[in-house]
Amino acid sequence: MSWVSIKDLKKHIGEEVLIKGWVYNTRASSKNIKFLILRDGSGLLQCVLFKGETPEEFINRFDELTQETSVEVTGLIKEDARAVGGVEMAVRSVKIIGISTDYPITPKEHGTPFLMENRHLWLRSKKQHAIMRVRARATKAMRDYLDDRGFICMESPILSANSCEGTTTLFSCDYFGEQAYLSQSGQLYAEASALAHGKVYTFGPTFRAEKSKTRRHLTEFWMLEPEMAFYDLDMNMDLIEDFIEHVVRVVVVDCKNELETLERDVSKLECVCKPFPRISYKEASDVLLKETDDFEEGGDFGGGHETILSEKYGKPVFVYDFPKEIKAFYFKRSADPKYVRGCDLLAPEGFGEIVGGGQREDNYDELLKRLHEYELNEADYKWYLDLRKYGSIPHSGFGIGIERTVGWICGVPHLRETIPFPRMLNNLRP
Amino acid sequence: MSWVSIKDLKKHIGEEVLIKGWVYNTRASSKNIKFLILRDGSGLLQCVLFKGETPEEFINRFDELTQETSVEVTGLIKEDARAVGGVEMAVRSVKIIGISTDYPITPKEHGTPFLMENRHLWLRSKKQHAIMRVRARATKAMRDYLDDRGFICMESPILSANSCEGTTTLFSCDYFGEQAYLSQSGQLYAEASALAHGKVYTFGPTFRAEKSKTRRHLTEFWMLEPEMAFYDLDMNMDLIEDFIEHVVRVVVVDCKNELETLERDVSKLECVCKPFPRISYKEASDVLLKETDDFEEGGDFGGGHETILSEKYGKPVFVYDFPKEIKAFYFKRSADPKYVRGCDLLAPEGFGEIVGGGQREDNYDELLKRLHEYELNEADYKWYLDLRKYGSIPHSGFGIGIERTVGWICGVPHLRETIPFPRMLNNLRP
Repeated sequence: MSWVSIKDLKKHIGEEVLIKGWVYNTRASSKNIKFLILRDGSGLLQCVLFKGETPEEFINRFDELTQETSVEVTGLIKEDARAVGGVEMAVRSVKIIGISTDYPITPKEHGTPFLMENRHLWLRSKKQHAIMRVRARATKAMRDYLDDRGFICMESPILSANSCEGTTTLFSCDYFGEQAYLSQSGQLYAEASALAHGKVYTFGPTFRAEKSKTRRHLTEFWMLEPEMAFYDLDMNMDLIEDFIEHVVRVVVVDCKNELETLERDVSKLECVCKPFPRISYKEASDVLLKETDDFEEGGDFGGGHETILSEKYGKPVFVYDFPKEIKAFYFKRSADPKYVRGCDLLAPEGFGEIVGGGQREDNYDELLKRLHEYELNEADYKWYLDLRKYGSIPHSGFGIGIERTVGWICGVPHLRETIPFPRMLNNLRP
Repeated sequence: MSWVSIKDLKKHIGEEVLIKGWVYNTRASSKNIKFLILRDGSGLLQCVLFKGETPEEFINRFDELTQETSVEVTGLIKEDARAVGGVEMAVRSVKIIGISTDYPITPKEHGTPFLMENRHLWLRSKKQHAIMRVRARATKAMRDYLDDRGFICMESPILSANSCEGTTTLFSCDYFGEQAYLSQSGQLYAEASALAHGKVYTFGPTFRAEKSKTRRHLTEFWMLEPEMAFYDLDMNMDLIEDFIEHVVRVVVVDCKNELETLERDVSKLECVCKPFPRISYKEASDVLLKETDDFEEGGDFGGGHETILSEKYGKPVFVYDFPKEIKAFYFKRSADPKYVRGCDLLAPEGFGEIVGGGQREDNYDELLKRLHEYELNEADYKWYLDLRKYGSIPHSGFGIGIERTVGWICGVPHLRETIPFPRMLNNLRP
């Protein structure tokens, strides 16, 4: 008898198959009919034990099928429109593989600290399972989008002697007697790679030693960072909006069931169509000064400000041309030298910044001046300056935060649920 | 006029196009005909400046086109079977974007330390460019293989309180006053994820603080680690050989030009067809004891031993069932309890181990005993033990080293050329 994944059962109607999985739930409707909901990682299946059809020995041992006990179940697959997945199984045999006694996560409500301590088990729950599926589908869509358009994946290093965004929130580590930092962004290296391959992206973990305990911060998070030779800021924004539209569209189609499980209002995602509005920092400031008391022109946006701006449009909105004081050293100056050519993309519904991008300073002398202004060690950036010395070009790129994007698509406000094993101020385990 | 990538020029024969790129090489055949080889990251293009066809101003400034100067060139694309890529350009205009004076890497031979210091520029060279393309294609083929077969990508954390393979070669880092380690493997977490999703993989950087300076070691390297619920060791080896065969086949077809640039003997890759031979550690020992004096039964294989074994077959070979003393704590016991159910895959041609895998111990008591034998802290592994407490199942997985696999496919023996920015004992820059 062949071992089949639950997700593929529709192709096996009328066949006897073997399912390997775990007890998700049970229900004894009467002495003669008992229900077993099985999960195998690919989906859920309702299995029915009928007296007369299922051998008595299995019906008698039904009580041993406690939550998360692992089992091998055989039976006949029948079409049933009312059941999850459209099929159910008439059980012929049940074999217990590993028992599970007093499984800690029950259908009742648990506090978040408890769930976080049991993240290795919490991942089995329906909602967490759905979020991880969306995450995997979204990142695949991102990579495929770029691969199909001639981008080359060039992993940036994690350990480095450079810092990218300033040194205050860096994790450091002893590297054979020398100090190394954990990467905050692969961008600087992606720039070198773009000058070798034209269009590249890095995809990997990035680190910020932030002491903030908000729902929007992880100390370890994943970023995808495309970088394109000969792209200016406008071309960059064109690419970002096409990319985001594509990714959201793929997920809405391919993860219909998962978004349903998450009770996500999909209509909010369906209106994510380009073009996205593009407003300058100056215009954004004018809006905020009118609508709130806690914003000062020249300052960075807080979460509340991002919400005000994004709620105006019902779709992602770009803010571009930021005051140079609030951006990193590598941004290209705008026509007005008070500003630099950065662009942030704010997600709707208060999910905040999901993409940060910009055009890079490509003039050697200007970049050197900026390095000094930011009190960075010139020697550490010699290689980065070289990129402006040997065939410099206009180039741009962006970084998209995987967890923030998944949180937005899933409608899950706290980032801890958007990554398999979150790392935060007080969370280094499991 | 449209901006076109060099790789797409075959679709633009007879058209005037714009190319943006860098001067790869120049040659003045006479006063009247000059050649410019352009690279744009996607390929190389021969551009011809003819007196009479190309405006004189550009011909007169030909000497300014030094190596790696960035340019925008327009001209007519013509079919030419003799030229690289099958086309050449009759130049109409050349605009210099960024000059490049005294580019450090010239066509002459350079020492490796010099090239490593200039890795950010070395990446532009033809051979390095080809290796990175193979790397990107191979990892994409790996991911697609798994995605197409229902595996879910579940990133494992990098920072962790656990060690996976023992603590001697760990990088550690201060995590808000607590000690954290950089991951040596995502496997333990992948096991938790497999029990939630059935079939998963992790893909990410892993770290070993190894002081060895061999061509086979990096301190930071990338691993893909699939993990499958309800798989035993034989199913694991079946999957590995199908996976490797697939990846090699895709690269041989899609990276024909790159492998040609690398002068790789492709016939050696074309015979990588399953089934791969499978020999037990005991059988491998018997071979080695006969053929070399420096092997002792019960010990781990060195590079030389792996070469002896793999050269016998001309294709990858599995060694399985290792003495438990030389393997990590989590392997499942074999029928003979002196051995554990690990499997290594050795690449042919002396490229050594590229895959390490095995079936995991799924019995709670046995695993606990092993943890104590290995003097690991039980409390740190409580969550890992839980996986054997709540619905334990037989499960297996493997890890494939990206750099070693790319080195083998490319025929490049030193791993430093198989990753964009290598990290080794003395290499933390650029």
